[in-house]
Amino acid sequence: MASPADSLESVAESLCAAARWCYGRGWAPATSGNFSVRVPDLPGSGILITPSGLDKGTVMPADLIRVEGDGGVVGSRIGKSRVGEERVGDSLFIAGSGKPSAEVGLHLTIYHGRPEAGAILHVHSVWNTLLSAHHASRAYAPFEGYEILKGLAGVTTHAHLERVPILEDSQDYDELCRNMARVLDEFPRAHGVLLSRHGLYTWGQSVAEARRHLEALEFLFEVEGRRLIGKESIVPDILT
Amino acid sequence: MASPADSLESVAESLCAAARWCYGRGWAPATSGNFSVRVPDLPGSGILITPSGLDKGTVMPADLIRVEGDGGVVGSRIGKSRVGEERVGDSLFIAGSGKPSAEVGLHLTIYHGRPEAGAILHVHSVWNTLLSAHHASRAYAPFEGYEILKGLAGVTTHAHLERVPILEDSQDYDELCRNMARVLDEFPRAHGVLLSRHGLYTWGQSVAEARRHLEALEFLFEVEGRRLIGKESIVPDILT
Amino acid sequence: MASPADSLESVAESLCAAARWCYGRGWAPATSGNFSVRVPDLPGSGILITPSGLDKGTVMPADLIRVEGDGGVVGSRIGKSRVGEERVGDSLFIAGSGKPSAEVGLHLTIYHGRPEAGAILHVHSVWNTLLSAHHASRAYAPFEGYEILKGLAGVTTHAHLERVPILEDSQDYDELCRNMARVLDEFPRAHGVLLSRHGLYTWGQSVAEARRHLEALEFLFEVEGRRLIGKESIVPDILT
Amino acid sequence: MASPADSLESVAESLCAAARWCYGRGWAPATSGNFSVRVPDLPGSGILITPSGLDKGTVMPADLIRVEGDGGVVGSRIGKSRVGEERVGDSLFIAGSGKPSAEVGLHLTIYHGRPEAGAILHVHSVWNTLLSAHHASRAYAPFEGYEILKGLAGVTTHAHLERVPILEDSQDYDELCRNMARVLDEFPRAHGVLLSRHGLYTWGQSVAEARRHLEALEFLFEVEGRRLIGKESIVPDILT
Repeated sequence: MASPADSLESVAESLCAAARWCYGRGWAPATSGNFSVRVPDLPGSGILITPSGLDKGTVMPADLIRVEGDGGVVGSRIGKSRVGEERVGDSLFIAGSGKPSAEVGLHLTIYHGRPEAGAILHVHSVWNTLLSAHHASRAYAPFEGYEILKGLAGVTTHAHLERVPILEDSQDYDELCRNMARVLDEFPRAHGVLLSRHGLYTWGQSVAEARRHLEALEFLFEVEGRRLIGKESIVPDILT
Repeated sequence: MASPADSLESVAESLCAAARWCYGRGWAPATSGNFSVRVPDLPGSGILITPSGLDKGTVMPADLIRVEGDGGVVGSRIGKSRVGEERVGDSLFIAGSGKPSAEVGLHLTIYHGRPEAGAILHVHSVWNTLLSAHHASRAYAPFEGYEILKGLAGVTTHAHLERVPILEDSQDYDELCRNMARVLDEFPRAHGVLLSRHGLYTWGQSVAEARRHLEALEFLFEVEGRRLIGKESIVPDILT
Repeated sequence: MASPADSLESVAESLCAAARWCYGRGWAPATSGNFSVRVPDLPGSGILITPSGLDKGTVMPADLIRVEGDGGVVGSRIGKSRVGEERVGDSLFIAGSGKPSAEVGLHLTIYHGRPEAGAILHVHSVWNTLLSAHHASRAYAPFEGYEILKGLAGVTTHAHLERVPILEDSQDYDELCRNMARVLDEFPRAHGVLLSRHGLYTWGQSVAEARRHLEALEFLFEVEGRRLIGKESIVPDILT
Repeated sequence: MASPADSLESVAESLCAAARWCYGRGWAPATSGNFSVRVPDLPGSGILITPSGLDKGTVMPADLIRVEGDGGVVGSRIGKSRVGEERVGDSLFIAGSGKPSAEVGLHLTIYHGRPEAGAILHVHSVWNTLLSAHHASRAYAPFEGYEILKGLAGVTTHAHLERVPILEDSQDYDELCRNMARVLDEFPRAHGVLLSRHGLYTWGQSVAEARRHLEALEFLFEVEGRRLIGKESIVPDILT
């Protein structure tokens, strides 16, 4: 979580840099993906979050939307334009017109269920799409025996079994939020949640830690995806 | 479609940037691919289009060819050189020597069949080549159940079934144009058309929307390609 | 082939840029690969060629070695240092110490067998290694039915059958040169030659055309490699 | 090994550049990987090594830790900050707070067992993870018949059989060090060692040679990984 000592502007830039980096990796194609950070000087569980419909390869602090605790969108953005934003603190918030994603509720649900989380990254990658489809009939995707697991906070050995819960995708966001809250509760040690054929939600105390978790999990998705591809029918057909 | 308020130069640069970006992704190798934008201040269905035989990683506005409604090539280019192009409007057009692609007719056919289209991107990628070959005996490649489908204009749920028509490749461009016109009619909701073992045509109201459709479709081609590779004989042999 | 009107320095830089670009694509790992251009103002079949053992990601004109017709190494390089090389023509050649590759003879053999060739690119890619191994027991790798074939000089239809001859790898370079001369003769329309589990040689009238052939062929190697991978035992084991 | 004539600062920057480059290749995700160089003007087998927990995509000379011969951490870093480091030699060392990796002992073990080694690179890649898992039940992964093998020091023919020893991963670093010392002894010609489902250790006389070995070995891991993926059950399941 960003400390009060961090400049709001530097936190916003850090989030945007992570979003642009994800786009560069091919993890936020076609304006998909959304990214948020919790800022302690906003009341309640105030967050800054990327808007819907924007190319994540170009997102800048001025594009971010401020959302307050109950999911209501304040509808303001940081700064009016993309230049000359020197001010910090509440005075930085000026009414704007960013369009919030329907997935804002999932971010707020995660911040509620993981009080230590300070940043959330949600990406669509080829391998998380394939892995989530492969394991869709299970409650979770299992990962064990890989040294890279130690990139996840609190994991100290490759022998750790990481279980990444999988939710069935839905356009009913209230239902998705309830399911998200449920799996956060059922999997108290999980570092991420997959939405089947949709993408990954992961988080961390800071943007940097969330990015570390993202890199570790996506590495595992690719390794397991490639390991399983040699076998027949890795992913069940859903088409008739 | 570019609005009259857009500078012709900025529209041309936007198109070239998309072409160079496609090249960087490996989607326009060996001077393949072609890219166009409809400009409203040209008479009829006037378009600007990349020339044949040029490395798409280096294409600049001065390389673009102006083509008018019936497919006749005016043979003029925007500006004489790559520098100092400050002028906008008709006065910008100066006779030039770019060589039009044989596929110009396909662009004009799409602009005719999709009046809302303002830009067209045609790319050769490894995965669209493989997918189009895999499904070559079908009339279309089906995609369903993926969240990324919502990156396509008008699609609001992952449950959407996107059918991407597939045309058999041919060097008879009149025949290709007739077939293109037919599938645009038969698949009124399609966001792209595949030419088997050749490439993808996709479009959008603007260059940005066409790029969003391209990213969404190529993502799906890769996911489905990798999903199907575990099975025997993903792609039939055509060699004897 | 570079025309006498081209600056020697610009030809050298064009070759080095192609080499660095190949390295960036992962096609010249571990100092592998070598690259040459024929320069008309050198006597005989004089060429400039990259030295052995150098990281191809950093090669500069001053690193190039000048080789004359019989394969004897003159041992001079273009310029003493990497800066300040403004001079053109013979006066540019200054004695130097670059180490020629053992594969210089293969370049000279290709220039002899393909008089129209002005530049040669030799790369090691994952897919050309796999494809050459897969087809090792055949005299050539076949490619047919792909639109990208039109990226090869003189090919006007996807229905073209491109046969890329495959030579067994060897450390006996005299033997390799004889075999190279033989397949250039046997496959007069071939645009490239594979050395099994080693790499690809391709060429063109200019560096730009050689690069276009390289991109087209590597695209085909990847497409065919991925197409064949779904089947059992794509590549025979050579290990006991 | 860096010669006394090399500036300490340039050696440190060379190591950091290699680390950042590895990160860019996806070979050091989630702060994984560690990188060291032996510096002759430190007493004993003094080395500079990247700290634990740092994003390897951003590592700078000021982040490096100085470690002396017995593995004890001196706890000093090169310079206080990332700017203004002009001084060379012992005077450059200033007390700092970098956190050494638990894998420092493996580096020291390799420097002891390979006296000619001047730099060590340890990376986590998708393909070295898969290959090490595939061959986990064998003592080593075999590579033979590939021209790229000549990128390894002392190898002069593709017919060379390179055996890369594989150690079972462990969190008991004393045990790992004993096993590392044993395989360095048993495989005197090996250019690298794999830790199963963990990563690769490779080395060279200089940072440049270590990078060349890394590129050659990772190329081989990918080629062999893709070659084997067409077969059933490439990698045994370890999950129940």
